[in-house]
Amino acid sequence: MVGLDAAILMHPNVWKASGHLDHFTDPMVDCKACRRRFRADKLDETPWIHYCPATKGNKFEIPAGEPCKHCGARRTLCPACGKGELTPPRQFNLMFKTFMGPVEEDAAVTYLRPETAQGIFVNFDNVLQSMRLKLPFGIAQIGKSFRNEITPGNFIFRTHEFEQMEIEYFVNPNDVIDGRPADEVWHERWIEERFAWYQRYGIRREHLRLREHEKDELAHYAKRTADVEYKFPMGWSELEGIANRTDFDLRQHGKASGKSLTYFDEERKTHVLPYVIEPSAGADRSVLAFLVDAYREEEVRGEKRVLLRLHADLAPLKIAVLPLLKKRDEIVATAREIQRRLAQRWVSVYDDTAAIGRLYRRQDEVGTPYCVTVDVQTVGDAEKREAGDRKVTIRERDSMEQVRVPITELETVFRELLADGVAWSAIVARYPAAQS
Amino acid sequence: MVGLDAAILMHPNVWKASGHLDHFTDPMVDCKACRRRFRADKLDETPWIHYCPATKGNKFEIPAGEPCKHCGARRTLCPACGKGELTPPRQFNLMFKTFMGPVEEDAAVTYLRPETAQGIFVNFDNVLQSMRLKLPFGIAQIGKSFRNEITPGNFIFRTHEFEQMEIEYFVNPNDVIDGRPADEVWHERWIEERFAWYQRYGIRREHLRLREHEKDELAHYAKRTADVEYKFPMGWSELEGIANRTDFDLRQHGKASGKSLTYFDEERKTHVLPYVIEPSAGADRSVLAFLVDAYREEEVRGEKRVLLRLHADLAPLKIAVLPLLKKRDEIVATAREIQRRLAQRWVSVYDDTAAIGRLYRRQDEVGTPYCVTVDVQTVGDAEKREAGDRKVTIRERDSMEQVRVPITELETVFRELLADGVAWSAIVARYPAAQS
Repeated sequence: MVGLDAAILMHPNVWKASGHLDHFTDPMVDCKACRRRFRADKLDETPWIHYCPATKGNKFEIPAGEPCKHCGARRTLCPACGKGELTPPRQFNLMFKTFMGPVEEDAAVTYLRPETAQGIFVNFDNVLQSMRLKLPFGIAQIGKSFRNEITPGNFIFRTHEFEQMEIEYFVNPNDVIDGRPADEVWHERWIEERFAWYQRYGIRREHLRLREHEKDELAHYAKRTADVEYKFPMGWSELEGIANRTDFDLRQHGKASGKSLTYFDEERKTHVLPYVIEPSAGADRSVLAFLVDAYREEEVRGEKRVLLRLHADLAPLKIAVLPLLKKRDEIVATAREIQRRLAQRWVSVYDDTAAIGRLYRRQDEVGTPYCVTVDVQTVGDAEKREAGDRKVTIRERDSMEQVRVPITELETVFRELLADGVAWSAIVARYPAAQS
Repeated sequence: MVGLDAAILMHPNVWKASGHLDHFTDPMVDCKACRRRFRADKLDETPWIHYCPATKGNKFEIPAGEPCKHCGARRTLCPACGKGELTPPRQFNLMFKTFMGPVEEDAAVTYLRPETAQGIFVNFDNVLQSMRLKLPFGIAQIGKSFRNEITPGNFIFRTHEFEQMEIEYFVNPNDVIDGRPADEVWHERWIEERFAWYQRYGIRREHLRLREHEKDELAHYAKRTADVEYKFPMGWSELEGIANRTDFDLRQHGKASGKSLTYFDEERKTHVLPYVIEPSAGADRSVLAFLVDAYREEEVRGEKRVLLRLHADLAPLKIAVLPLLKKRDEIVATAREIQRRLAQRWVSVYDDTAAIGRLYRRQDEVGTPYCVTVDVQTVGDAEKREAGDRKVTIRERDSMEQVRVPITELETVFRELLADGVAWSAIVARYPAAQS
């Protein structure tokens, strides 16, 4: 698998070849009076303005999809002004367009990419040659894409500008795995792999489902497509589509550019158009799903605890270092020194702006997996001539379990927890529990 | 220092407040006959078409800046068609514009950011509040910016779409460091830090210079600006500007939005507009400089060696694993196994498609810092009943020195070289030299 960072602004010919210029559209209607524009298929999902003939033309705002209570009429005119007739639906392209060069003329039109995939296809041969790859191989890209959506919303689920993560995994269609076409086998592997990925980073199995596209729903180029869906508060919605796009894209771009995008199969001594398996995911909506799924409200000792159970790899802060008592200088100095050292390796914060219970809750709310607390026992008491044990408490966010660990072993423990995938239970087994 | 990923499409009001809408322009002239457009200040840098009255109106293409040899005239008309008069210069904005929403009307105009900086300023308060920061602090961003350049070129030095790296470092203007205003001291620190950065990744000191902006060259908001310049083949050109922008940006956006972007100075109990020090660099042109500076041609044993002396952190491949003899199965199998293991941690390739000398040259050319070679000594000779020593050769790219290292110690050695910053000389001192 190799990475790519292709262009955002791409020539109209690319979008002509990919089909986006002709087919990446929504049906729109215009009001002949007020000139407002609406998505034809969403017209009945907005409230509408009605001048009711049964009430001397009084103006009413009527809920979406309902008839007028007075005259029984249903909406036929513009829902916004209530007066204008609507044009028949016309196809409106969802690509943002701009002009390259100083003159705003047709020849200068260029488009912001609505997906990163096409940048991979048009660079297929560059990547193949420079990286000397052999089938099967993947080209992966994370980057911004842009869609002039008429109805953005649901927080960051649908936005005009979004971060896409796409893999184009190229397979030799002549290959056979266990008696079956290689593209079908690889498609299944990628569906499994991607479905498992969301769970690996903490999303609960019961909030995920796979949805096969029906035959009549399949894009014309797709042999099979399965979506990973998440149970958002607004309903089951797509996180990712995994499609078997066959050789459609490489064939189209080959035709349009006059440069065939084939691969030379050395074994069979033939040129072949690879099939492509495409896992295509939205980074923003994945983040939304991870956040939604991690959010919990619990009752702890009669109090509500708000908790973000983010996987440690996703948590923006990994470790918070907290002093149990702010008025003891040695405690503060020791805590600050520990934070400074841990921060060289992990995103860590020091916080002493509240009592310890409040500090813990604050870190629970932003999903910090571990807190380190420095107390009197750590630093000792000079007046009483008591030496400190140079140990601190590590508290785990979800279980709220606490163990007592020597300061000198902190980095080893956090490397195990945060880099090497060692389970918290292994740490609990190794160190004595701390009083909470 | 915290990171940010702000929007690419931003509202015209942001660009009005920042000054880009009014001032981010080039002077352009139009031909009244053929409608072509030119940069007014570059007119004399292109060849021009001339219908010469001294030769019955014959058409000549005359080199840039020169008069007609026949009639002595200089260009006054359109250089492209040779016939049309040019309009007086008008300011042409370098921002790409597009329309958000379905109707291409003035109210829908939005702009692709020409720099990442403004996204940091308009998010200043969001970041300040959510990350609970104290002055001085920095907000850093790496991302795409877009400029409708009339004259892109010099490879990737100037492109319409480019990757910018910017830091906005906010300083309390009331602070004093060693008797001097804190913003001036921080500005100097950042200039030194950034100048050192290019050298740390391998650019030769003599190919870098600092250039102070003259008083009359300074942007109206800047107190002082220094550029880091690199000696490209096309001449000294800017890699990065480090500006003291004072409180200009936060003041402007505060005014335009009606929401003041101040910071509360707890010590002095006053609200203050931070000053900002801005290191603003181009990732693409840095890459070009790193490539240009790393490229060497050497003579080795009477042959030319092409070498890319990339810093190991910048090299796209870190390790190549090569079999000395392809026909010995144990050698190939051992090399493949070593590559598979190293690839889990570092970008590594296996290559056996040529003789060893050619394989080394290939890796030298793409800048791979280390090659690992498996030979007969490594695996032994079963027929002769000779056991292998399970050691391999590591060859360093620049010195071409070779040492003999046990396979079991490879990962430790590469962790030292590639992660811990241990010098190659320390490895040479530890292991026996290999014959080359």
